[in-house]
Parts: sequence; C-alpha cells; structure tokens
Amino acid sequence: MGVALADVRAMDAADPLRERRDRFVLPDGVIYLDGNSLGALPKATAGRVQDVLAREWGQGLIRSWNAADWIGAPARIAAKIAPLIGAASDEVTVADSTSVNLFKLIAAAVRHLPDRPVILTEAGNFPTDLYIAAGAAELIGRTVRAVPADEVEAAIGPDVAVVVLTQVHYKSGARRDMARITQAAHRAGALIIWDLSHSAGAVEVDLNAAGADLAIGCGYKFLNGGPGAPAYLFVARRHQALLTSPLTGWMGHASPFAFEDAFTPAEGIDRFLCGTPAILAMAALEAGIGEFEGLAMADVAEKGQRLCTLFIELVEQRCSGYGLGLVTPRQPAARGSHVSFRHEQAYPIMQAMIERGVIGDFREPDILRCGFTGLYVGYEDVWRTVETLRDILATQAHREARFWVRSRVT
Amino acid sequence: MGVALADVRAMDAADPLRERRDRFVLPDGVIYLDGNSLGALPKATAGRVQDVLAREWGQGLIRSWNAADWIGAPARIAAKIAPLIGAASDEVTVADSTSVNLFKLIAAAVRHLPDRPVILTEAGNFPTDLYIAAGAAELIGRTVRAVPADEVEAAIGPDVAVVVLTQVHYKSGARRDMARITQAAHRAGALIIWDLSHSAGAVEVDLNAAGADLAIGCGYKFLNGGPGAPAYLFVARRHQALLTSPLTGWMGHASPFAFEDAFTPAEGIDRFLCGTPAILAMAALEAGIGEFEGLAMADVAEKGQRLCTLFIELVEQRCSGYGLGLVTPRQPAARGSHVSFRHEQAYPIMQAMIERGVIGDFREPDILRCGFTGLYVGYEDVWRTVETLRDILATQAHREARFWVRSRVT
Repeated sequence: MGVALADVRAMDAADPLRERRDRFVLPDGVIYLDGNSLGALPKATAGRVQDVLAREWGQGLIRSWNAADWIGAPARIAAKIAPLIGAASDEVTVADSTSVNLFKLIAAAVRHLPDRPVILTEAGNFPTDLYIAAGAAELIGRTVRAVPADEVEAAIGPDVAVVVLTQVHYKSGARRDMARITQAAHRAGALIIWDLSHSAGAVEVDLNAAGADLAIGCGYKFLNGGPGAPAYLFVARRHQALLTSPLTGWMGHASPFAFEDAFTPAEGIDRFLCGTPAILAMAALEAGIGEFEGLAMADVAEKGQRLCTLFIELVEQRCSGYGLGLVTPRQPAARGSHVSFRHEQAYPIMQAMIERGVIGDFREPDILRCGFTGLYVGYEDVWRTVETLRDILATQAHREARFWVRSRVT
Repeated sequence: MGVALADVRAMDAADPLRERRDRFVLPDGVIYLDGNSLGALPKATAGRVQDVLAREWGQGLIRSWNAADWIGAPARIAAKIAPLIGAASDEVTVADSTSVNLFKLIAAAVRHLPDRPVILTEAGNFPTDLYIAAGAAELIGRTVRAVPADEVEAAIGPDVAVVVLTQVHYKSGARRDMARITQAAHRAGALIIWDLSHSAGAVEVDLNAAGADLAIGCGYKFLNGGPGAPAYLFVARRHQALLTSPLTGWMGHASPFAFEDAFTPAEGIDRFLCGTPAILAMAALEAGIGEFEGLAMADVAEKGQRLCTLFIELVEQRCSGYGLGLVTPRQPAARGSHVSFRHEQAYPIMQAMIERGVIGDFREPDILRCGFTGLYVGYEDVWRTVETLRDILATQAHREARFWVRSRVT
C-alpha cells in the first residue's frame, strides 16, 4: 500500500500553514528544497527594502539613524529572533556574519577560562566553525581538539574551556540533545557554544531551557533573511557581565557617540556588537523573520517533521533498489528539517533534479540533501520530488545531466 | 569685495561635474553636507537592489551564487574600488565592517613581527580604530601606544610592529602625508595600516605610490554604498603570502566548497575574506561606487577642494565676528573633503542649520563639520549654507533650536 497522491493532497488540504506559502516568491515550475541553504524570498521583503532605500536613506539621509531607528535595528531584530530560540530579547543581538560571531564567542569563552587550553569540537562540523576555532586557537594560544561526533561528550575533560557544537548537522541532519550535552559541559566546568544555523527556524530550540551559555546562528537559511544576511549571537544573561568581545568596535561601546578614546564595553548584549550595522541587509532579515509572526514555532517545526517523514517514507517506498541509503535519523526528535540520502551518483542525480526544477543540493562526497520548511513546502511538493527522483533513477537520466561548477554556498 | 552670488553661479555653470548630481536622490529643500558620514542615495541603487531581490534571489534562489556571480561580488567590487585608492585589483577585497577588517590586519601585522610589542596610533584617532587596536592588543598580548598627532612619526621606534593611522582625520579634516609616514614606518622596520574611510572617494589616494602595506576603508561615506555598507581592505601584493587573517572563515579558504576540516588559506587577497558575503549590501555598494565610473578621481577631488576653499572663504568673509574658528588646514593638499569650524555653541547651531535643511553635523565638543563631495554638492549650495549659517548667528536663532538626541553615526 503506502502513501498515494490522494493522501498527500489531503495533507495539503488539511495543512493549517498552507496559506503561508503565498507569502513567498516561489518561481513557476520550481520545487524549492534548499531553504536550509538560502531561504526563499518573502513577498514583503522587496517593499521593505525599497522603503529603506527610497524614504529612509534617500529622503532621511543621515537623520534616519535616529528618525528611522536604524541604530535600534540590532536590538529590534534580536527581539524577533529570541522567541524562535528560547532566549530573552536582551540575550540576543544581530551583527556581522556567523563566522565573525563565533570568533567573538570563542575568544570570550577561552579568555574567561584561561587555565583550560582546549577548544573542543567535532570532526566534520560545519567547516567554517572548525576554521574559526582553529584561527582563534592559533591567535590566542589554545588548542582545538576535534573528535568524532559520538565521542564529544566523553571528551569534555577538565582541560576544555569551551565546546563548539552545531545543533543540527549540515550534512547528516542529525540533531544533538542540547540540554544533555550542555549539562555535560557544565559538569566538566566548560562553557558551550551552540551553532543554530541549521536548527533555528527549522525545529524548536530552547536555549534557556537547556541552560545554554552561548550561541550563534545564520540569518539566511530558515530565517529567510537573504543571501549573506546578518547573523546573530546569544549570550546568557548570567554571562554578559563576565564575558567580553575581542572585536571591540564602536557599536559595542557603552557610549558609542561620545567618541571617547578609551573603550568601555556596553553593559549588556550590545558589547558584542562591533562595527556599524548593515542596514539594508538588516531590513531584509527583519522581513524574513517577520514570516514567523503569528505562528507558533512548534507548528512550523511539526510540519517540517511531517514533510521529512513523508519524504523518507516515499523514497523508501518508491525508489527502493536504486542504491539510496538514508543518512538522516528516522526519529523526528533526532533530526533537523532537512534529509540526506547517500548515493554513489549523488552529484549528477542532483544536477538532473535541478534541471527538472527540483532544487535540493549535493554535499561531498555522495550526499543528496533536501530541506523541508513548513513555511513554504507542501506535501505534494514532496510527492513530486520523489517522483522526479524515481524517474531519474529509473531512466538513468542523471548520466545526461550537465555538470555544473561545484561551488555553492550552504 | 570677496565672492558674490553671481560668482558661485558662474562656478556651477562652468562645473564639468555639474550633471553628476542628477544621478543622486537629493531631497527638495535640503543641502546635504554629510556625505562624509553617509553618502547620498544614487538613483541607480534602488533598481540594482530590486533586481538582486526579485530576479537573482526570488527567481534564481540558491543558483544565483553561480548564475548571478554572487560569489564573485567581493572581487568584482574590489576591482572598482582599487583605482580610487591607487591599488591593483588583486590587492583589495570587500567584506565585513571597517572595524572587523582593521582587527584582521592588526592581528596579521603583529603576528608577522612577534618581537615588536607595540601597536602605535594617534590619540584622538577615529574611536573605533582605537577600540579595535586595544581589543586586538589585549587578546594577543601587545600594547597600544597612542601619542599626540604630531608625535607619531617620532614615536615609530624599534618596538613598534604596526602603525595605525587615519589618512584624513574625521574631526579636523587634516590629511596626513601617506608617503612620508609610510617611509618613516619602513625605516623603523614597522608595517603601517592606513584607514581610508574619510579619504577614499574624497581625495586622491595612491597606496602603491606611497609604498603602503595595508589599508582599510568604509563603504558608506564618500563611496555612497548605503548605511552600514560593507567595508574593504588592502594588502600589498608583496605581503599577501606572508600575512594571514585571524578570522579564518570559510570564504578565506583555498577551496571553500570542498568542505574540508582543515583550514588552508587562499593564495591571494581572498584569504582575508571571512563569512558569507552580504549580497544585498554588496549590490548597493557596487551601485554607489559605480557613480565614479567615467570620472577621474583627480577631477572629483579637485572639485571637492574648490568647494572646501569656497566654504572657508565665505565663512570668513560673511560670518566674521561670530566666534567661528577654522579647525581644518587651509592648504588643499593638507586636508580631506570636509571642513570643520569650532564654535562654543556648535551643537545648537548645527541643529538650527539642520532644521533649515542644511545637513552637516556636530562633533564633540564644539565642532561644526561640513562635507563637500564633488559628485553632488554645488557651489551655490556652499553659498546658501554660509548664508544660512550667517543668518542663524546674526539672529541667534540657535537659541531656539530643538535639542536632538546626540546619537549619530559618522
């Protein structure tokens, strides 16, 4: 038996989030399963950005730093991200890139625990996290220890200052137990930094319920902030007076407009700001996060899980015998909102899918990855995705696929 | 005698750059003299940003990293900045904020000269430069020495790893002799970092003629990139293989899309990239810099100098006896493209000017600052500015000026 087309259509008809997709620009003939890499464009974004350009910048000019509250953008947007990640508004700010924010927090943490030489992370973590950890360690005179994913908890010893982990793995989609690992870090006297890039906006995240110390995340994936959107960071209130950013730019000063020669860090989360906020990019991010307004994150996450489960079921039902192997955990609580299958021809298969308008992505060396966001993916999209995949595999159409340049931003 | 209204109108009529102002959005009733803080909006920007939103992001989605060459934006925009600052295209890249880029270069420089403990700068430098130097010094274990402006050259001793100077001072408008001071740094065995934020796009800058090592600069002032635009950095070709960024994000990797665990820096200037480029902000910056295309920087700079000279002459001619004192050097070669006067009532005077549509700015404690860019300021604008100032001073209208919140981004 299994799932039939009529079933998925009934799921769409019964979907309380169904009308949300109308708020996004989705090109004709495209099924977009790469919102885990670059979220789709909300229809509201263009108007918001135009208003910033034409009215705030064009007419308001320099006055808009006050009159249009540009200066308040980091705090204002942070307050919209906070409920998606289980944080208080004054524990989050928006600035810079994920990589730069990770550098700030690693440096802050290791300086706070100077007798502990180790930055612990997992091998195969998202590369920029590994690179930034290595760069910070080299600069400050610490060591990065990268251990296999299942050995991280056991490796949190008394020499570890900070653990750097991604909550949902970019490739496998596996989700870590944030509360348990945070407790393990604390038992060992270490701090922990969670990278939420592939979990915020995708699954329920509750930093404060988990007792988390520090976190960073990306604005351009499930938060729909646009290519290279500003990133955010979280510092638990209890740590804010104790930790300081090494990137002491003027926006982190207690009185940025006093133009004093000496740096005095701002009291709260603002001390983790650095340079002048990127207002156009901030406006697009604010519009993107606005698409979560009026929704419970639990509902978005639940629909994402249903889409993922349906995808796994349909692939195993309709594409069996073609050499696909599930990489992502089957249990919804153990994964994010994207699903990866392994196939030895993964690269040309994904190219063939993209040529047919089904946009997922390929990850080295053999991963087909598809992201499912409850905001704009429907159940019939999943059906059509699997039918497309099945047809390619059955006809070996991927042998004809054009080979694109293998550069792609996650 | 002195200058008369008919004279300035003749200057406008003879101005070969006169039609350029039509390429900018300038609100009715406003004379905008704060392009040294936030450049005016080019008319081309809105269309360019809309295209990135609607076509590249909305329709192209993730494919636009290749198809729309988003991934090439830093190098493409750098190639447009390079001729404005006397650099080769492959010596410049565009990324992050001015503050973050300064951190990268200070860290790179001091690591390259580990036996020299001092970062030398001038007291009263633009605050974020002082703050970033202090933050980097504290993190890496170095010392910042900030000496009075006229003692910098004498202070470049054998203990100095890097000199951090702004070419044109944000408050006084004084311009340093880049070639002479660079040579002094080199004679002492030090590297030098030039902050071009208030000089690039304002005056002729020739990094390579001066033998400069490193530079940073801002995209949102004279380059018209929009509020919080991405910044740029310069590393002379001879240093690129020797210096490494401490912010080792994935965009600085030799093969960012290979997703390797180990960081290998890119060969050239790309190693100073960090996180994912902010594409919307990049698009606006690219449009802003586009306003220099077809012009010689020498011509833009010369007109800016004429405007500054006219402003000084008219203020001294028509506002004498009201307590204004020139802060900025009189010699065109010794200043940037903004002019500051001191007045004990500077703050309410500038508020009164802004209420009358003449937008300059105030700087602590007693500075009236007006920026003059050849791209969109005319000679009659200068005349009307001085008439407005004279009327305020003569009628003491500033005693009625509303006191705005003193927060403003330079």
